Amino acid sequence: PGGVSVAAVLPAGGSGERLGGATPKQFCAVQGRPLVSYAVRAMERISWISDIIVVVSPENIETMKTIIEKYGHKRVTVVEGGITRHRSIFNGLKVFAKNEFSSHLLQKPEVVIIHDAVRPFVEEDIVSKVVMAAKEHGAAGAIRPLVSTVIASAADGCLDHSLERARYRASEMPQAFLFDIIYEAYQQCTDYDLDYGTECLHLALKYCKTNAKLVEGTADLWKVTYKRDLHAAESIIKDNLSQQVCVVTNVKETLAQVGFLLPESLKSQIKVEALSISLGKNDSHLQNIISGQCYNFVCVNDKRCAIQEMQELVDVLEESTIPLLYPVVLISVHLDISENNSFSIGMEDLTTIKKFARETKKKNILVYGLLIQYK
Amino acid sequence: PGGVSVAAVLPAGGSGERLGGATPKQFCAVQGRPLVSYAVRAMERISWISDIIVVVSPENIETMKTIIEKYGHKRVTVVEGGITRHRSIFNGLKVFAKNEFSSHLLQKPEVVIIHDAVRPFVEEDIVSKVVMAAKEHGAAGAIRPLVSTVIASAADGCLDHSLERARYRASEMPQAFLFDIIYEAYQQCTDYDLDYGTECLHLALKYCKTNAKLVEGTADLWKVTYKRDLHAAESIIKDNLSQQVCVVTNVKETLAQVGFLLPESLKSQIKVEALSISLGKNDSHLQNIISGQCYNFVCVNDKRCAIQEMQELVDVLEESTIPLLYPVVLISVHLDISENNSFSIGMEDLTTIKKFARETKKKNILVYGLLIQYK
Repeated sequence: PGGVSVAAVLPAGGSGERLGGATPKQFCAVQGRPLVSYAVRAMERISWISDIIVVVSPENIETMKTIIEKYGHKRVTVVEGGITRHRSIFNGLKVFAKNEFSSHLLQKPEVVIIHDAVRPFVEEDIVSKVVMAAKEHGAAGAIRPLVSTVIASAADGCLDHSLERARYRASEMPQAFLFDIIYEAYQQCTDYDLDYGTECLHLALKYCKTNAKLVEGTADLWKVTYKRDLHAAESIIKDNLSQQVCVVTNVKETLAQVGFLLPESLKSQIKVEALSISLGKNDSHLQNIISGQCYNFVCVNDKRCAIQEMQELVDVLEESTIPLLYPVVLISVHLDISENNSFSIGMEDLTTIKKFARETKKKNILVYGLLIQYK
Repeated sequence: PGGVSVAAVLPAGGSGERLGGATPKQFCAVQGRPLVSYAVRAMERISWISDIIVVVSPENIETMKTIIEKYGHKRVTVVEGGITRHRSIFNGLKVFAKNEFSSHLLQKPEVVIIHDAVRPFVEEDIVSKVVMAAKEHGAAGAIRPLVSTVIASAADGCLDHSLERARYRASEMPQAFLFDIIYEAYQQCTDYDLDYGTECLHLALKYCKTNAKLVEGTADLWKVTYKRDLHAAESIIKDNLSQQVCVVTNVKETLAQVGFLLPESLKSQIKVEALSISLGKNDSHLQNIISGQCYNFVCVNDKRCAIQEMQELVDVLEESTIPLLYPVVLISVHLDISENNSFSIGMEDLTTIKKFARETKKKNILVYGLLIQYK
C-alpha cells in the first residue's frame, strides 16, 4: 500500500510439542490441506506482497516444496530454519540482505511482514493496517484483548500479583517492520535473545529504540496451538466456504422464474450471485465470481442430464486454482415441469452422472445431482 | 478429599458477547447438549462435592431448570445472578451464608470451588488438587502457560513493554477457597471491584491477605470464548466418546474365537473391554463398564436378528443415565458362518432392525446392524 515494497516471512519451523502429535501443527491437514498452505495462501492473495519466505526446519524442506507445488503457490521461497523461532526468522530475513552465504538474493523490501504459519486466517485489511503503521512507526503488531487474567507467581508457587486485564494485551501476528530496523535488531541481539526470546516487537524496542504501533486485530488471528484448534480452524473454513452460492440458469424462458425465485429465497441466509447465461469459457462475470471466493454452484436446467453444461463449468473451475485450495460443490438441478413426467429417473442417467461425479471428485469438485419433478 | 466438606459455585450469567450470537455461550448446544450441562456434569461426577450452585441471569432461570430436569442433574441449586461476574459469584456464595433474604439455606461448606460454566472439561484430579491446596493455603487456582506474549501499551497506542513470558501465567478455573475467606473478601470489596473486577484470587489477596496456591492445570481447562471454541469442544467430546469400546459376545462356542480376535485387533487403537456373557439386567461387570464412561458397544451374535439381546442391552443402558448425556453407539454384528448362507438379507429383518433403531434413537441410543457372511 502506498507504493511501499513489502515482503513476508513465515516462520514454520516449530515442532508442535503442545499439540501432542508426531506431525508439527503447521503440516497437519485441515480439510485435507496442510495448515501452512492456508497461511501462505492468505499472504499470496495480497497482490502487493512481492515475496513470501517460508522458513522450515531442514527435515521439512522437501515437504514444504511439495506443498508449494501441489497447491500452486507463487512468489514463495523456502528457507532453512534455525533451532529456535528467532533464529528461523533471522534466517528468513537474511535472504534479503547482502550476505556471502545466500546464493539467491531477493530484492530487499522496505517493510517486512512477519506472520505465523499456524495462523491460517488473516485478511488483507489487517495486514495493510499493520504494514502502514510499520512504515510510519518502524514497527507494528496486531494485538487482542486477553482472554484470561494474567498473574505473576512468586518463588513458592503462590500468587504474587494479578495484572489488571484492561491495561494489557495479547501480542499476536501479523507484525511488520521497516526491514532495516528488524534486521539491525537481529544482528545486534544476544545469543540469549535468539535462544529464549519469542517477541520480535521486543527486539525492535530493545535494540533499535522503536516502540511498535499496536493494531487491534480480529478474533480470527488466533494461533493454532492445541489439537482442538485444528478442529476450530476446520469449522471456520467450512463456515467461510459456505458464505456464498452462485445460481446458474440457462437463458431459456421456462427457467427464468426459478432463476429469479431461488436466489431470492436463498438471500436471507447466504450471499447469492445469480447468473443467467449460456455457459462458455469466456464469460467474464462467471470468472469474476469464481475468483471472488465462491465455492458453491447450483446449476438449474431443464434437461434430463446436463453433463455438457456441467463439463463447461468444471472446465472453467479447473482453469482457476480454486479447486486446488478448497473443495468446490456443484449441484446440478434438473427441473422437470413437463406434463408427462413420471416419478422415476432412468438408470442410465444415474450412471452417467455418477461416473461424471467420480471423475470431477479427483479434481476436488464435488458434483451432486438433484431431480425436481413438479406437476 | 480428606474429610473436608466441599461445594461448588458455577457462574453462568455471561452474555457471551464475544461469541457473536444471540444465545449466551453457556447455553449453546455441543453435540446437542447445552455447554453448561457439561460443566455441571463434570462437578456432579465428583462424589465429594455436596452442592452445586449454578448462577444464571434472571431471564435464564427457567431454561436452566429445564436443563437440570432434562439431563437428570442432581445436587444442583439455581441462583439468580447479578449484572457482573463478581456479583453473580457473590450471590452464589450467599446461599451458604446466614442471610435474611435466602429462604433455602444450604449447609456451609469448608471449601468452595468456583468454576466456569463455559469450561466443560475438568477432571476430578485437578479439582481435588485445587481443593487440597485451598484447604492448606486458604485459596488456590489452576494456571496455564501463556499462549501469546503479553504486552503493555502506552497511552499513544504504542508498545510500552512486553512481559517475559516465562514469569507469568494465565489464571484459569477451577479455583477453590476456604469459604470464610472468599465470603469475607466479597463482603469487604468495593463496588468498583464488584463491577469491574474479574479475578477471585485477587480479591482473596487484596482483602484477606491470602496468597493463593497456583496449580498447573491441563490444556482441557480452557474457556469457551469464541464460536470456534464450540467446535473445538465438540471435537474433544467426540474424541472422548470414542476412547473405549465394549465387545459383547454371547457364550456360544462358535463365537468364542471372534469374541477373542476382535478385541485383540482393536486394542492397538482403542481401549477395549471384552465381555462374554448372556445379557441380563443384573450383570455387574456390564454395569461397571457402562458407568465407566463407555459409549460404544459391539454385540456379536450368530442369530439373524438379535433384537431381544439388543433390547436387553438397551434396557440396561436406559437405566443408567449415560444416554441422557451422550449418544451411545450400539453395533449389532450378525456373523453368518453357516455353509448355506446367501449374500442377501431378508427385507423383513431389515425392516425389524430399522424400526428398532428408530425407537432407540429417541433414547439417544444409535443402533447399527452389520451382517458378515463368511464361507
